[in-house]
Amino acid sequence: MTSRFSIAVDAMSGDFGPRSTIPATIAFAESHSDTDISLFLSDGTVVPKELPANISIVYSPSVVTMDDSPANVLRNKQDSTMAQAIEACSQGAADAVISAGNTGALVALGRHHLGTFDNIRRPAICKAIPTLAGHSYMLDLGANAIADAQMLHNFALMGSAMAAELDHNPSPSVAILNIGVEHSKGNRVIHEVDALLKQDGRLNYVGYIEGDAIYSGSVDVIVADGFVGNVALKVSEGVARLALGQLKSSFRQNLYGRLLGRFAQPLLRKWHKQFDPARYNGACLLGLNRPLIKSHGSTDERGFLSALVMAKELAGTGLTQRLQAQAIARKLGEGQ
Amino acid sequence: MTSRFSIAVDAMSGDFGPRSTIPATIAFAESHSDTDISLFLSDGTVVPKELPANISIVYSPSVVTMDDSPANVLRNKQDSTMAQAIEACSQGAADAVISAGNTGALVALGRHHLGTFDNIRRPAICKAIPTLAGHSYMLDLGANAIADAQMLHNFALMGSAMAAELDHNPSPSVAILNIGVEHSKGNRVIHEVDALLKQDGRLNYVGYIEGDAIYSGSVDVIVADGFVGNVALKVSEGVARLALGQLKSSFRQNLYGRLLGRFAQPLLRKWHKQFDPARYNGACLLGLNRPLIKSHGSTDERGFLSALVMAKELAGTGLTQRLQAQAIARKLGEGQ
Repeated sequence: MTSRFSIAVDAMSGDFGPRSTIPATIAFAESHSDTDISLFLSDGTVVPKELPANISIVYSPSVVTMDDSPANVLRNKQDSTMAQAIEACSQGAADAVISAGNTGALVALGRHHLGTFDNIRRPAICKAIPTLAGHSYMLDLGANAIADAQMLHNFALMGSAMAAELDHNPSPSVAILNIGVEHSKGNRVIHEVDALLKQDGRLNYVGYIEGDAIYSGSVDVIVADGFVGNVALKVSEGVARLALGQLKSSFRQNLYGRLLGRFAQPLLRKWHKQFDPARYNGACLLGLNRPLIKSHGSTDERGFLSALVMAKELAGTGLTQRLQAQAIARKLGEGQ
Repeated sequence: MTSRFSIAVDAMSGDFGPRSTIPATIAFAESHSDTDISLFLSDGTVVPKELPANISIVYSPSVVTMDDSPANVLRNKQDSTMAQAIEACSQGAADAVISAGNTGALVALGRHHLGTFDNIRRPAICKAIPTLAGHSYMLDLGANAIADAQMLHNFALMGSAMAAELDHNPSPSVAILNIGVEHSKGNRVIHEVDALLKQDGRLNYVGYIEGDAIYSGSVDVIVADGFVGNVALKVSEGVARLALGQLKSSFRQNLYGRLLGRFAQPLLRKWHKQFDPARYNGACLLGLNRPLIKSHGSTDERGFLSALVMAKELAGTGLTQRLQAQAIARKLGEGQ
């Protein structure tokens, strides 16, 4: 007997919308016959005539845009593809839900329909980032544009639990992203959370980490508020793009370079594939009671496909349920 | 007739201290005979016997460490190399001062001895960053670990004035670093400064910019608080280092790659030189009444040398005096 999985997909999300989400979902459905997919589309969206049998279409009357405020979405867009996909997951019709849409709206709808772990006020966006040593987990990547010390403490606990579960690491090292490693560096919130984490025996807290050490792989979990985390992640993508662009142009500057560049193409592609932070697509909203996957908004078909794979993995491993159980047993989110 | 310049150097600063600052200063002095350098060293530091004639040594009894809090430095370390170099500049014995030391201490001593422009409460660290289009100016890179809307407004005015002066750009475009470009994105402080900049007719304000667009060169001046700006800059350095490391290792993975890598070396070196954000060394504390240059703490001899060149340029162009005049004439720092 094999178990079946189901995923709800907000196909009207991301910069490319259905142009990237539909082909990605079809590719995913074809290679994952054990998974049923509900594709949430806005009324009238044209779909290919022949769809794999494990895809079913659900039409919704509205769509969440990037300009919609979370409050407006909660009040007026419960009939949107995003809201209805999340609601399907909350009602058990899907094991996981995925969207590349408006982060603020996703967080608001996720909290509303799926709820958060006991004692966790706010979910955080968490993902694995590539490092020289393999990967680390970083959170929050943009769910909370401001965070107090207690929220950051919760993020540390959730990130540590995620690393422990996914990497079978009994004691993941946790650091706070700061503007220096010395005790006096940072601001009031940073000093407060530093004091909280030092006192928390459940954590392997190692202190501060600076931005240039994120990709060294020296710690397993990196904690920041959603503003700083989001900037750090997006800056990384920008630098990777610039680096590749500059490298390609230096290979183009003279005949010698052009010849070399031609031979170097396969290596460059491989390098880009290994390294580009945007390729590690798919982040989860940690702290919600069901797996909600946030795909990068600017991702292409390939990127959305890898976020779908992540959604299935999270549904399959039962990570959320185990974290939820931990949240109760270990009292995540309660101060010492 | 040629004019002479003078620079005060805190040689006890940076991760490598005199091992990198002394050789860099000697190299600079040898190639800039129109500049006199006061090298501030701690008592007993050994220097090469033969120094260029335009270097004079000043010994100080103490040194500011990376752990020193700004308050402690102000109270107890006025006899340090850092404090005495800055004081020399404030008394007119030097046209500019340079240090690779503790940022918090530099800001505190800079404010104390050099003072800030009228109406500017806090200086900001500003530097040119390499972009696909040339360079942009980014501030604050770490002088203020927290900033309110009025401070960010001042940073925008100072950054705009710097770009106007150095690049002869009559209307530099200014953007705020945010976690989305839509109106609703960000937090309260971001929304407040957005409203202030929109109303300020002295600025060519273009709205929000995301982290992945910093290096596109689409705007001339990027404004952030010192926490976010510092993380953005250091993450960039980390990614550049990782990218180069990964690229080198993919050139090493098989015989074909090793051969290619051998031929590609000169191009790689050139690329690294063009791109590496750490090579654009030397940032100025904008808003102080005299030029104070902050060199990257982890820089080597070559990096410190380029910061020295920047110090001379800023002294030579009279940028600080012109910004100061603008601060009075254009009422920088006064709300509308």
